[in-house]
Amino acid sequence: MTKVAVVFHSGYGHTLRMAQSVAQGAGGELVAIDADGNVSDAGWATLGAADAIIMGSPTYMGSVSWQFKKFADASSKPWYSQDWKDKIFGGFTNSANVNGDKHSTLHYFMTLAMQHGGIWVGTGLNYNNTKASQRADVNYLASSAGPMAQTAGDASAEEMNPGDLETARLFGQRIAEVATRLRA
Amino acid sequence: MTKVAVVFHSGYGHTLRMAQSVAQGAGGELVAIDADGNVSDAGWATLGAADAIIMGSPTYMGSVSWQFKKFADASSKPWYSQDWKDKIFGGFTNSANVNGDKHSTLHYFMTLAMQHGGIWVGTGLNYNNTKASQRADVNYLASSAGPMAQTAGDASAEEMNPGDLETARLFGQRIAEVATRLRA
Amino acid sequence: MTKVAVVFHSGYGHTLRMAQSVAQGAGGELVAIDADGNVSDAGWATLGAADAIIMGSPTYMGSVSWQFKKFADASSKPWYSQDWKDKIFGGFTNSANVNGDKHSTLHYFMTLAMQHGGIWVGTGLNYNNTKASQRADVNYLASSAGPMAQTAGDASAEEMNPGDLETARLFGQRIAEVATRLRA
Amino acid sequence: MTKVAVVFHSGYGHTLRMAQSVAQGAGGELVAIDADGNVSDAGWATLGAADAIIMGSPTYMGSVSWQFKKFADASSKPWYSQDWKDKIFGGFTNSANVNGDKHSTLHYFMTLAMQHGGIWVGTGLNYNNTKASQRADVNYLASSAGPMAQTAGDASAEEMNPGDLETARLFGQRIAEVATRLRA
Repeated sequence: MTKVAVVFHSGYGHTLRMAQSVAQGAGGELVAIDADGNVSDAGWATLGAADAIIMGSPTYMGSVSWQFKKFADASSKPWYSQDWKDKIFGGFTNSANVNGDKHSTLHYFMTLAMQHGGIWVGTGLNYNNTKASQRADVNYLASSAGPMAQTAGDASAEEMNPGDLETARLFGQRIAEVATRLRA
Repeated sequence: MTKVAVVFHSGYGHTLRMAQSVAQGAGGELVAIDADGNVSDAGWATLGAADAIIMGSPTYMGSVSWQFKKFADASSKPWYSQDWKDKIFGGFTNSANVNGDKHSTLHYFMTLAMQHGGIWVGTGLNYNNTKASQRADVNYLASSAGPMAQTAGDASAEEMNPGDLETARLFGQRIAEVATRLRA
Repeated sequence: MTKVAVVFHSGYGHTLRMAQSVAQGAGGELVAIDADGNVSDAGWATLGAADAIIMGSPTYMGSVSWQFKKFADASSKPWYSQDWKDKIFGGFTNSANVNGDKHSTLHYFMTLAMQHGGIWVGTGLNYNNTKASQRADVNYLASSAGPMAQTAGDASAEEMNPGDLETARLFGQRIAEVATRLRA
Repeated sequence: MTKVAVVFHSGYGHTLRMAQSVAQGAGGELVAIDADGNVSDAGWATLGAADAIIMGSPTYMGSVSWQFKKFADASSKPWYSQDWKDKIFGGFTNSANVNGDKHSTLHYFMTLAMQHGGIWVGTGLNYNNTKASQRADVNYLASSAGPMAQTAGDASAEEMNPGDLETARLFGQRIAEVATRLRA
């Protein structure tokens, strides 16, 4: 059976909720990066056994949170032996702003995945931006490298946009499908 | 007197309107890249004499239009002799999508400016994204590297968002101010 | 049988030679972008029928050549109908400089591939940079997003580094392998 | 008098040595980020008072070290009040590989500087890569966004390339010159 791991750091619960949507779509397992940037031994084992690793982080000051980066730096251990080579990779991010350099975060995920010898899968969702488009449409934020969510700075995780979460769920589903095909 | 040139390609008039707003803010001169990717001799002379060069292009398929790229490739001539060294540079873009890889276009402008030995100035505008924020707010699209505009695929240039155009105008003003300070 | 297409623009023959090495490794077919940025109807058909599309361009002024970008803009036609969705994508570049913003070119290829709903495969080659490393080592230039070649500005295509060309060949081989697995 | 601060994290002494060269060229003051990603109160005060902030980090796993990112995240405090607006910014990086995604690190520095409303200055150094070029030439690694150094994985800081360090020194000098002009 295809195994998908969703490794993420969440500062205030928004990225957690996005991770849950991705994991739901993928039938995947959550691996949390804690407030000190650490992952449990069980978490590392889950990542090592996964067919696909999906990475999530808020966008803070133009890229992933330092906690996510600490995880990325610690992944130099599996990188050294290329243990994660040929796994499927994907990534997602939330921030308070419409753009706010979320593209920079996603391209960092891609760079990290490439260093691991991985295979990158994006949203596979076309854009749908006409005058009739609504904020809650799937992929309204129009990202192809990976799903983006935008939640106002004074909005709680409960107030996240349902279209952004559905985009995340569809992305998780796509990752699982590609991983299953590649595994066959 | 400080001279600002705004060199741009516009496919359907949206980037032209953004360029006009930037030029209005900067007290600058427009230099058009035509449908074949060419700039007139007078245009090249304007760019050579400018204290600041502001670049504009729609985002097509994830970066600047090919017409803008043809201009960029032709700028290898002033690059070769580093004629544009120490000029102020900035850039702006419009596309149909909220994100749609506009960040990629702006980072390409930055890369080009750095090859020319230029000095890069962004929007200098903080974000303002709370639940109370409105689409027509200044820098609602939340870009710091340079102003972004988003215009639905079925909307004409006349229908552009006034906040996006005001963001472009403020950016032009900022470029002129920095260029004047640096010139002193 | 797995079909790999290598679509490329070459200004002075270096990228052509790199494309030939990639195609040799992949058992792939070359599709040339001409000096005006055009691809023949037969070329478009080859791309449409391919399981994997590998893109190549020199790095000029910090990104792909304008001829490659003209091809990318013209690919908005298959993009519109998402005809290239789920194909494997990869990319490669040559320039006169060791770095010289080749990373920017590769990230543009990734951005374009994501817009097409593609799946990105990099070199899958670890780095090998110790004091004992030699310029002709595989992946000496140390790129994971895609192979890089560096050829001095006054060196002909015949003088290209054999390690760079071998890196390109191994990359082509890898793309074909992943495309075959995904196709099964 | 123009004040330049060089804020950096160094894991094994290479980036420290590069920082010293930059500071020497700029007549600047070093502000160290420690192994836990923290900067002293005196360090923050130095940054707040500076006309120019130059940022340095090794490239680890495709971007700045997590310690540098922790500093960047902590800079959300001056960002919130835009205390660093209109300062000059620049950045530099060292890694074991020729490319190894150093460009990604430099573009992250640019993204961070733009969020702070800063003004970005690169190396201003043209390339010089002919067949006659030597590894110890200034800017042999050919970066325009900021200086790069490459030191083999098994080489100590004492063994760093003198050309890379001279490139760093010239960059520091350039930053100080631009900051002085802008301050006038």
